[in-house]
Amino acid sequence: MPLPRPDRARLERHLPILKWSRSYDRDTLTSDMVAAVIVTIMLIPQSLAYALLAGLPPEMGLYASILPLVAYAIFGTSRALAVGPVAVVSLMTAAAVGNLALQGSAEYAAAAITLAFISGVILTVMGIFRLGFLANFLSHPVIAGFITASGILIATSQLKHIFGIDAQGHNLTQMVMSLFAHAPETNLITLAIGVATTAFLFWVRKGLKPLLQDMGIAPRLADILAKAGPVAAVALTTLAVWLFGLQDRGVRIVGEVPTGLPPLTLPGFSGEVWSSLFVSALLISVIGFVESVSVAQTLASRKRQRIVPDQELVGLGASNIAAAISGGYPVTGGFARSVVNFDAGAETPAAGAFTAIGIALAALLLTPLLFFLPKATLAATIIVAVLSLVDFSILSRTWSYSRVDFCAVAATILLTLGFGVELGVSAGVILSIGLFLYKTSRPHVAEVGLVPGSQHFRNIIRHKVQTNPAIVTLRIDESLYFANARFLEDYVNDRVVRDTSIRHVVLMCSAVNEVDMSALESLEEINRRLRDMDISLHLSEVKGPVMDRLQRSHFLTDLSGRVYLSQYDAWRALTQATAPKAEAG
Amino acid sequence: MPLPRPDRARLERHLPILKWSRSYDRDTLTSDMVAAVIVTIMLIPQSLAYALLAGLPPEMGLYASILPLVAYAIFGTSRALAVGPVAVVSLMTAAAVGNLALQGSAEYAAAAITLAFISGVILTVMGIFRLGFLANFLSHPVIAGFITASGILIATSQLKHIFGIDAQGHNLTQMVMSLFAHAPETNLITLAIGVATTAFLFWVRKGLKPLLQDMGIAPRLADILAKAGPVAAVALTTLAVWLFGLQDRGVRIVGEVPTGLPPLTLPGFSGEVWSSLFVSALLISVIGFVESVSVAQTLASRKRQRIVPDQELVGLGASNIAAAISGGYPVTGGFARSVVNFDAGAETPAAGAFTAIGIALAALLLTPLLFFLPKATLAATIIVAVLSLVDFSILSRTWSYSRVDFCAVAATILLTLGFGVELGVSAGVILSIGLFLYKTSRPHVAEVGLVPGSQHFRNIIRHKVQTNPAIVTLRIDESLYFANARFLEDYVNDRVVRDTSIRHVVLMCSAVNEVDMSALESLEEINRRLRDMDISLHLSEVKGPVMDRLQRSHFLTDLSGRVYLSQYDAWRALTQATAPKAEAG
Repeated sequence: MPLPRPDRARLERHLPILKWSRSYDRDTLTSDMVAAVIVTIMLIPQSLAYALLAGLPPEMGLYASILPLVAYAIFGTSRALAVGPVAVVSLMTAAAVGNLALQGSAEYAAAAITLAFISGVILTVMGIFRLGFLANFLSHPVIAGFITASGILIATSQLKHIFGIDAQGHNLTQMVMSLFAHAPETNLITLAIGVATTAFLFWVRKGLKPLLQDMGIAPRLADILAKAGPVAAVALTTLAVWLFGLQDRGVRIVGEVPTGLPPLTLPGFSGEVWSSLFVSALLISVIGFVESVSVAQTLASRKRQRIVPDQELVGLGASNIAAAISGGYPVTGGFARSVVNFDAGAETPAAGAFTAIGIALAALLLTPLLFFLPKATLAATIIVAVLSLVDFSILSRTWSYSRVDFCAVAATILLTLGFGVELGVSAGVILSIGLFLYKTSRPHVAEVGLVPGSQHFRNIIRHKVQTNPAIVTLRIDESLYFANARFLEDYVNDRVVRDTSIRHVVLMCSAVNEVDMSALESLEEINRRLRDMDISLHLSEVKGPVMDRLQRSHFLTDLSGRVYLSQYDAWRALTQATAPKAEAG
Repeated sequence: MPLPRPDRARLERHLPILKWSRSYDRDTLTSDMVAAVIVTIMLIPQSLAYALLAGLPPEMGLYASILPLVAYAIFGTSRALAVGPVAVVSLMTAAAVGNLALQGSAEYAAAAITLAFISGVILTVMGIFRLGFLANFLSHPVIAGFITASGILIATSQLKHIFGIDAQGHNLTQMVMSLFAHAPETNLITLAIGVATTAFLFWVRKGLKPLLQDMGIAPRLADILAKAGPVAAVALTTLAVWLFGLQDRGVRIVGEVPTGLPPLTLPGFSGEVWSSLFVSALLISVIGFVESVSVAQTLASRKRQRIVPDQELVGLGASNIAAAISGGYPVTGGFARSVVNFDAGAETPAAGAFTAIGIALAALLLTPLLFFLPKATLAATIIVAVLSLVDFSILSRTWSYSRVDFCAVAATILLTLGFGVELGVSAGVILSIGLFLYKTSRPHVAEVGLVPGSQHFRNIIRHKVQTNPAIVTLRIDESLYFANARFLEDYVNDRVVRDTSIRHVVLMCSAVNEVDMSALESLEEINRRLRDMDISLHLSEVKGPVMDRLQRSHFLTDLSGRVYLSQYDAWRALTQATAPKAEAG
């Protein structure tokens, strides 16, 4: 029996799977299956590599790519988003968990699982309380700067695997210093494998597809084959290690990866661990959400679909909780992976569920084959993947457009490189909010006059306009609130004190979207002071919502002048009122 | 020879003493002297108590009330602020220094002196770099709420002296619980002194001046006599204790105060000490400044005076440096004390200098006379002073004017009462900034039409206006920045998707004071999407500063429509352009 319509709509909003599954047919199934196969092939080496980046055993990367994908397929709204371990979040996981436990210890893995759980709870709660708008406070330039800096950090962190040495550090300086310190221990065979794989993967990205097409292979197939590059690299280098026994000549390998499906795990509930992981989990949640939602939105708009950000929070929250109960670590929607999924023809989130089946099969059957996989190959995969994220053009674009945005980007990049991901992104957010507040606390105020032959008023400095010495019209280019209330008092005072011919001050409020209590008190103060100087205060073009509020205060009764609907009305009335006086004087 | 005007003005800005001292006359002197005497009497036992609270020898409290007051009198801009040791800063000092040395040791006292010096340097540097604007982020309602809640806290904290019992607590609940717990220990003689003094002081405030005037005493003298009420209370109760030996019947008295002038001291310059004290010093500086400036601002506005926050930073910085070189510890403007100073009639900062002389004289000569002063009398003075500041009308005023302001006030009051002044005021500031950001992240957007017979455009919902089905004009009532960029994208999309007759979208930018990089990218996205739907995007009334910036980007070249100087121009041009089509359709 079908549910009544409103109930069904509500249920579908919370369980998007109910919506798309109704129209699921064989064509959609085929598209989703093809996409799933391609994403699976891409995801196996990535999962292993990102687990390595997070300092976790490789199987945890695989586990994080099974149940979380199923959870997202049920609760997510994007049709193309591919969820799983991603580079930036893996790096942030390493930074967060590294404060609590030693890499390689059981506590380290347990903390990563708990981190995923806390992050899942935060995301779900944010989704339920519709707090998705909070992500808007991460400005585009800050995100761009953060991703670029993270890409550099991640690539640098992987160089140790390319050189086959031990090195560490949470910021760029530490890493580079450590790399130089350990450089003499470089293992040349590892270096050869690493450099060759990196070169091969770069060539696959740029040169393989055209080559395949030149060889007469259909573009669609050529595309898919090119995406399988990392798998080929994994297979070839693993084979090489096995054949020549390179593991005995210092080449570090992945080693034993447990075979089997993900275990059931329980996150820790120690208050101490939670309180020390909470801030990191919050940052991981927000960054993961922003990265994920921007990919999802870009892909959705290409097909004129919509995603629901607040429901995305629930989807990602469910994914992370799923990761926590199945031996994984924090996950989110991956950029490259989602684009591949989209390009490969994924039509619904079912593609993600099929990918999960693919990874589960790999975990059951393929893990023994991964024993001889050199870590250098995984490092090369990561380096090639993240270097495509590095894009310094945001610096030049913001420099020419807005110095304020430039400052936020530059600070984000420098602080991320210098002090790590958490401090970098927090500083970026705080700085952009701080700069916005600073700007609004010192608003632009324009003295305006009438554009001849129109009823339009513009800045007397920029335009040729009519003015009247007895009337000063100030257009305040900002909402009036506590941070700039005093500024306005001072500005009006300074303007009238130095000009004794003024009889009327008009505040043109077309750009005033808000007058809060502090600003109201400042307006009352301005009115009082002007009256003492025998000057009338008028308002013009006060917006509906602002007027509604002013009418609830005493200000309008105390106002020495009038409130005019339009600035032109004010101009006409006051020009007539002052005309006889002007003649007399 | 007088200085040239600009030089004198600059000098006066940095040395406010030069300004007010020019018009200093006998009346002002009398007012200041009376205030100084009253504040001196209040300050001596307070200084001793706060020094003990900070874990320091009692004489350090006196030393912190001499030279710092002189320094503030030279550099400060508030006419009523009374500088010295205060409760919150004393507590913070104990916490900061307690990490470094054992209470009672010489290192402990030396660290407190160093803390005052670091705090002084921080405040002065902030003043030089004009960071005083930060104080504007304390909105009027938050200050009002903070002062009301602090008044209640302070009054409650003094009740134990009225009852003659031991009680403590940092928030209202703790204090009230503690008072009830110790109520059985009430000393009835103390209670009688406390209640009688409180009643006497309330009567002095309300009834004494009219009575004196009725008795034929000149208003000015009546005023001074009324202001000297607390002095009379102190003299009478001290006499009573001495005459009847009440100290032996459980009435707590101030007791022995060591005598002597402040020594010259040198702050420590050990890098280790500095680095471990720096964060504490920063916190003490900021909280002290915020507390001090809010008191100073409230008191200044009652007399239509102004304070200069940047110069206040220098004044407080100088005071702390003065404290550090004269055996004191961190000081700031005291809340209750400044109110008493103000109520006692202080007209200029000279009152502070006279207070310093008073404290110095008292430290040398008068301390034996204070031996029998009952603490209950001081408590009564403070209670009567601060209760006049408790004013819950801010709640009703903000409730009727703006719910957002109401939330900030209510939170400030509740959190100050519940968790102490530091958390209360910080939460008030953070909440008011957060609410402001939240509002700007969901801006008001009005669809506007032409007011007939004018060139003025207003909201179609509020006004009777002309519209055209092919043209949608949206007036965005907010600057466009990262927090609302995505909102605008969604808003425009939702508006055009449900109306297929639309050919032109005009964004009326009269209220857009800023378009940052994130918003620019959103505008580009809106332009792209509308073009895909065969709809042109136009802008109108773009302000000069915003236009300057847009011209530095690619947006204007990519824009599918035009930028019109006025909304009326846009309306005329687009109405003509769509007219034939409208007829054909």
